[in-house]
Amino acid sequence: MTATPLKAQIARLSDLLNVINLLNWDASTGMPNGASLQRGQQIATLSSLAQSIILSPELASALADEAALPNLTLHQQRSHQALQQAIAHYKKVPASLVVEQAQLVAVAEVAWRQAREQNNFSLFQPYLEKIVALKRRFAEVVGYENHPYEALTHEYEPGLTVPALKALFAQLQARLLPLVKRVHAAPKPDNTFLHRHFPVDQQRALSTKLAGKIGYDFQRGRLDTTTHPFEISITREDVRITTRFNPQFLNAGLFGTLHEAGHAIYEQNVAPELSGTALTLDLFGLYAVAGTSYGVHESQSRLWENRVGRSLPFWHNHYAELQATFPGVLDDVSVEQFHRAINRSEPSLIRVEADELTYDFHVMLRVEIEMGLIEGSLKVSDLPAFWAEKIQAYLGVKPTTDTLGVLQDIHWSKGMIGSFPTYTLGNVMGSQFMAAALQQQPSLATALEQGNYLPLKGWLTENILQHGRTYLPHELLQRTTGKGLDATPYLDYLEQKFTALYQL
Amino acid sequence: MTATPLKAQIARLSDLLNVINLLNWDASTGMPNGASLQRGQQIATLSSLAQSIILSPELASALADEAALPNLTLHQQRSHQALQQAIAHYKKVPASLVVEQAQLVAVAEVAWRQAREQNNFSLFQPYLEKIVALKRRFAEVVGYENHPYEALTHEYEPGLTVPALKALFAQLQARLLPLVKRVHAAPKPDNTFLHRHFPVDQQRALSTKLAGKIGYDFQRGRLDTTTHPFEISITREDVRITTRFNPQFLNAGLFGTLHEAGHAIYEQNVAPELSGTALTLDLFGLYAVAGTSYGVHESQSRLWENRVGRSLPFWHNHYAELQATFPGVLDDVSVEQFHRAINRSEPSLIRVEADELTYDFHVMLRVEIEMGLIEGSLKVSDLPAFWAEKIQAYLGVKPTTDTLGVLQDIHWSKGMIGSFPTYTLGNVMGSQFMAAALQQQPSLATALEQGNYLPLKGWLTENILQHGRTYLPHELLQRTTGKGLDATPYLDYLEQKFTALYQL
Repeated sequence: MTATPLKAQIARLSDLLNVINLLNWDASTGMPNGASLQRGQQIATLSSLAQSIILSPELASALADEAALPNLTLHQQRSHQALQQAIAHYKKVPASLVVEQAQLVAVAEVAWRQAREQNNFSLFQPYLEKIVALKRRFAEVVGYENHPYEALTHEYEPGLTVPALKALFAQLQARLLPLVKRVHAAPKPDNTFLHRHFPVDQQRALSTKLAGKIGYDFQRGRLDTTTHPFEISITREDVRITTRFNPQFLNAGLFGTLHEAGHAIYEQNVAPELSGTALTLDLFGLYAVAGTSYGVHESQSRLWENRVGRSLPFWHNHYAELQATFPGVLDDVSVEQFHRAINRSEPSLIRVEADELTYDFHVMLRVEIEMGLIEGSLKVSDLPAFWAEKIQAYLGVKPTTDTLGVLQDIHWSKGMIGSFPTYTLGNVMGSQFMAAALQQQPSLATALEQGNYLPLKGWLTENILQHGRTYLPHELLQRTTGKGLDATPYLDYLEQKFTALYQL
Repeated sequence: MTATPLKAQIARLSDLLNVINLLNWDASTGMPNGASLQRGQQIATLSSLAQSIILSPELASALADEAALPNLTLHQQRSHQALQQAIAHYKKVPASLVVEQAQLVAVAEVAWRQAREQNNFSLFQPYLEKIVALKRRFAEVVGYENHPYEALTHEYEPGLTVPALKALFAQLQARLLPLVKRVHAAPKPDNTFLHRHFPVDQQRALSTKLAGKIGYDFQRGRLDTTTHPFEISITREDVRITTRFNPQFLNAGLFGTLHEAGHAIYEQNVAPELSGTALTLDLFGLYAVAGTSYGVHESQSRLWENRVGRSLPFWHNHYAELQATFPGVLDDVSVEQFHRAINRSEPSLIRVEADELTYDFHVMLRVEIEMGLIEGSLKVSDLPAFWAEKIQAYLGVKPTTDTLGVLQDIHWSKGMIGSFPTYTLGNVMGSQFMAAALQQQPSLATALEQGNYLPLKGWLTENILQHGRTYLPHELLQRTTGKGLDATPYLDYLEQKFTALYQL
């Protein structure tokens, strides 16, 4: 079959973006230190070539020709929409703004690192102020429906509105705040044994085995070690994950691997015919990714990490294997004790280390800040105080330093404002998908109890993964659950799980 | 400093070619098996983008503008020449020929592998016939001075003529054939201890240390393990080498690493201001490489591997370290015995395993075949017989199977005809450079005896490495040695080394 002119151009664009992913993977895994400036330049060159393909008259005319054909398939229609939106977007955003942001974040990230090292927010503050000002201009140029923040979240979660987000957070807070109070008032499960000695090589072997069991295909993937774990796809046939192993703490490497494997399972199971098309590209982020949004992507990683990986049936199936992997180390710990330990909840200051129950408060805090900054109701200089007050209100803890608070995340220094909501959306949507799966296919529960993850992976592939970016997040939700965004299944799950764990 | 329009375009071209190098490195080191088709597509896309930059009207006009300026620097003049030649080349070679070759070598390489596995040249013969026919057409299109073979060698060794090559081979044969006879008639040094057990991790540690000592900078490089060792540059700041370790044979990993480190030292020491310019690009091969030709590149790897790494002074300095790396394994072997063993010469069938003294006969055989095929005096079907006859005449051995003879190299299946001369040119030029260095800077010899490799690296950088592709190979030879290609220093060196080693 010959590729149409449009297909051929998008395939080139896809190759460029996939190659950028490899450049980023390599920069994080093994690139020599001296090469980072050059690597930035290489990525910039490929990005600008990608952008010039999107804005080329050749693409516009091929798109117009194909869009005028009768009997377009759904995939064609959706590709055309995505391309038209991207072209419109790049025409609206002046090149000067893009250059300005690139230059700004290059110095802002350095300033953020220095501020963190010196534990001093004021070193980062002027850069963040410039970033916020730039993002506000960006929002005005791009346009939005209800709130300028939507212009920013759109790149990560198309279709998300600020009213929907506020309603979601209100729903979460209403039920989670009392639950958190009850849980934290109860006696804490012992988890000291998770800090015994777990040699890294054995951790890697176990994590690899379990990632394979839940369905990550190592024939089309690989696992490396990095400071900041991530998943990235160099094509559907080459989806890589990284993790980090701490020999004194089992959870980090183990659940980190399951989390990234969840992301990877998404990318590996998109329909082959969508490879190299606009339906496996994030055209706004110039990023080769088949998952339809950051939130839906996160729904898959959290689902495999938490719903499956932190469940009692999972450990009934794999605890003996874990014990055998570390001979003698956990002989005195029962599977129930282990399960309670890996799910222990407590108030904490650092988002990436937070447990399942408290995690969303870290997200809500950041999203409230971002909305405030973008609408102008909150000043950058007020952030440390606002942060401290909020986290105390939610979780009863207070950061004693900027590094434990407002300086902990890298996102803002990279110009990423608007991505935080997707972490909570992932939790919420993951539970909606899980509830729908169990309801539509009741035998799934038995399969999971027996350590058979293929039926769940099959349901997810059928309903979500294979479609790539064909459907927007809310369309996927409607198709699979018959509903829009709804925190109820997630809240039900948390309530059930933690009242059982803590015997409330 | 703002880049000129020409510089900016070449920098983009350079980024594309450097990225292709990373794609190739990744494909050889750790890419999941399933991804090779997609990887080929990614490389094809970037190559075609690179080619369209070379042939773009924008580049032509920027080049014309800059070439018309007064007071051009030497670097500018040479860049302009290289670009003009590349543009002329790509205009001469029809795109259909390029596509035809790409399609042909894709199937030919598969056929070559099958033929090797089944030890049956006739399976590869029809593909090689097509490749030869295509290369003959290519030579006619590109043009040549004396002989169609020059049109092919030009891509690897610009300026090399067939008369010069024939004269060189005659000179080599006249002195090497009697020397080889005398050496092989003498008693062979014992080398059985090189086949004791050398654990791979310790081999890697030692090879890394020695590569660092001769001047390979690991801050801007890394060492990986692959089946077929190579060196590749992702930029001057990121020059990677690979090697393979055999736990039952010390030489392979050790001297293989020094060889690749020699290539890498070339790439790491080109002048920084040449990075991202046409003087660090092979525009014919669409390959990011700063070394001015395959032959000059090989001169550096052979120089560090053999002239330094297989010398007695080198082992006087490092043998204790080697013994300590493998405790007890070589306690009964003196440094002199070790030195004789690693230099043992014997007739052999496989080029990549051949010793220093017999290596060039393997090259001459292939080059005679290539010239015969391209001029039409030799038929592909006659190759096995011709091969057997020639290798027997040179070395007194005869291949019993095709795999041990005509099927052993991958080059022809990849469409590479014309690169073999550069292996011998490397040996010859390396010795010319070494002789010039020792003559111009006599203290170098003392430094080498003391295990100090910086002065030699300094001389090479000053005279060769820093210039990138500014000078053609014969210009470099003239500048550094005052002469053209001349095998005398190489032959003197071999005669001296092997008569001493074999006490002739």
